[in-house]
Amino acid sequence: MSEVRRDILTDTWVIVRTENTEIPLNHRQPAKPCPVCPFCAGNESNTPPEIFSIRREATGPNQPGWQVRVVPDKNPVLRVEGDVVRVGIGIHDKVSGIGANEVIIETPEHIKNFHLLDANQIALVFKTYQARIIDLYRDKRLRYVMIFKDYGALAGASGIEHTHSQLIALPATPQKIKNELARAKGYFEYKERCLACDLINFELTDQKRVVLETSHFVVITPYASRFPFEIAIYPKRHSYTFENTTWEEIANLGEVMKRIGQALYEVLLDPPYNYVLHTAPNLLPIPGYWATIRDDFHWHIEIIPRIKRMDGFEWGSGFYINSIAPEIATAKLKERL
Amino acid sequence: MSEVRRDILTDTWVIVRTENTEIPLNHRQPAKPCPVCPFCAGNESNTPPEIFSIRREATGPNQPGWQVRVVPDKNPVLRVEGDVVRVGIGIHDKVSGIGANEVIIETPEHIKNFHLLDANQIALVFKTYQARIIDLYRDKRLRYVMIFKDYGALAGASGIEHTHSQLIALPATPQKIKNELARAKGYFEYKERCLACDLINFELTDQKRVVLETSHFVVITPYASRFPFEIAIYPKRHSYTFENTTWEEIANLGEVMKRIGQALYEVLLDPPYNYVLHTAPNLLPIPGYWATIRDDFHWHIEIIPRIKRMDGFEWGSGFYINSIAPEIATAKLKERL
Repeated sequence: MSEVRRDILTDTWVIVRTENTEIPLNHRQPAKPCPVCPFCAGNESNTPPEIFSIRREATGPNQPGWQVRVVPDKNPVLRVEGDVVRVGIGIHDKVSGIGANEVIIETPEHIKNFHLLDANQIALVFKTYQARIIDLYRDKRLRYVMIFKDYGALAGASGIEHTHSQLIALPATPQKIKNELARAKGYFEYKERCLACDLINFELTDQKRVVLETSHFVVITPYASRFPFEIAIYPKRHSYTFENTTWEEIANLGEVMKRIGQALYEVLLDPPYNYVLHTAPNLLPIPGYWATIRDDFHWHIEIIPRIKRMDGFEWGSGFYINSIAPEIATAKLKERL
Repeated sequence: MSEVRRDILTDTWVIVRTENTEIPLNHRQPAKPCPVCPFCAGNESNTPPEIFSIRREATGPNQPGWQVRVVPDKNPVLRVEGDVVRVGIGIHDKVSGIGANEVIIETPEHIKNFHLLDANQIALVFKTYQARIIDLYRDKRLRYVMIFKDYGALAGASGIEHTHSQLIALPATPQKIKNELARAKGYFEYKERCLACDLINFELTDQKRVVLETSHFVVITPYASRFPFEIAIYPKRHSYTFENTTWEEIANLGEVMKRIGQALYEVLLDPPYNYVLHTAPNLLPIPGYWATIRDDFHWHIEIIPRIKRMDGFEWGSGFYINSIAPEIATAKLKERL
């Protein structure tokens, strides 16, 4: 038996096999020893000079004593220098490669997976994300800051196993975010309510896909999950941007991320995964530009375990086939919470 | 050095490293022996009864003597029986899982990769695609027929190595196709010309990304290729649908596919890949529904070698990072043509 479902946020259609309970676990994690880890405390000189750090002790930059540290990517895809130049190449469009590409080192200790960190340490990592977004959004050439984590080679991670996440600041708002913004705006025009707020209310009533509810967050498996064990984390308080999240909320988010990370680790046996922060774009001082975004957009986090390869059908169509219903994923995760 | 490029067809942004020439070849192809191949001639009873076949000899269905054979998927994600029922589940949308899921067996011989087939045999495979689309589009519940190939485990292929492709008929037009249709329509409204026709003309003038030009087809690497060695094949004659392609064109396409498949095999050392046919949706007999599609949409084929894993940034954003500029990919492929 299968159902064809539409994700209300993205207009993405998904075929969900509703009866299947067998979890595909045919992924592999190659072991990669790393003799001198550039992300460990004491090896600060092996990275480019730091951009930002949170320090318990009053030590100077690029010295031990930090709790979270942000450095530029050694081989950045985009650089901060220069103007944003938009050019037509015949029929095509081009923008100069302006932006930023930073690495967030999540702990001074050589720990591989973020769920092994203290909840408070994870909260400091998210506090760091917030500080970087606020800082980068001062530069109005930068339209969007995308923060994400790749864990495991099958999730696109490169060599270094020391737990870290990444940030890419872009000169254009990415298509998936634009699509989410447009969907949210369309719903708001129709209902005068936030789509995600309505979604959270419905899921809390229905309960079938609620993995975890805490004082400040709701964790669900999306109704039209594209991938087995896909997770979405929404703040209960309506807010379009992660920028204005309070420390109390971030501390609670640290606990949520630790518990969900631990449950995914146990159920899926150390899966490769990505998580991505979906916050608002950099609001430009132009009247009318995303005029209703404060009311209609709701920031959130997506976690995608990468235990299944996309096939040609999914590539070609944006129509996904998910072999595990989110209701089953929710039940399995709740056993471990 | 990098450039940020926009794909005019899909509004997808891609960061292209323009100076890089090192091809990532860290994929692996696990060898999987298949003792009794259900797709080989003589083993017809090991598949569900056939739906369609092209036969040189006047043999009956499910007997040897076929050249191309189409059978239902053993474990289909969608089935033909039943009505299309659209239901609201609270805030969510659901459609009953109506559709079809077929396998196109491309040769009676145990050959693994389609480029090893004769050009004429490949043409018969595309002739079969055409026959299946025409047949399935008689059923107006089916909104779209997606035809694709998965080659290699890293491209999502399952166990059987005997060369085959797949067809999924859907009760909704997939998002990526809708997006392409909307982009084509928007351009046509502005210019009163087909976007893809203009693109082909520009690329033929510019030449930098033209891999191959034949009597009926142009093969390019898209300006904003999302993946290294991504390929697009366009018919020169404007046509919105693969349904009305002539045998002369299909015979020429067989030669094009063989040459491009061979070149990719040689340059990328037997890569996993997908190809996908992008044709028009099933036109409904409703006035105004896709009213200009015959003028504005242009069918084409996408080939995507899967030699690189998408990371969290690409997942989250729909903004891609491509380490090989398409101009370099074109040059490398032309050396092998």
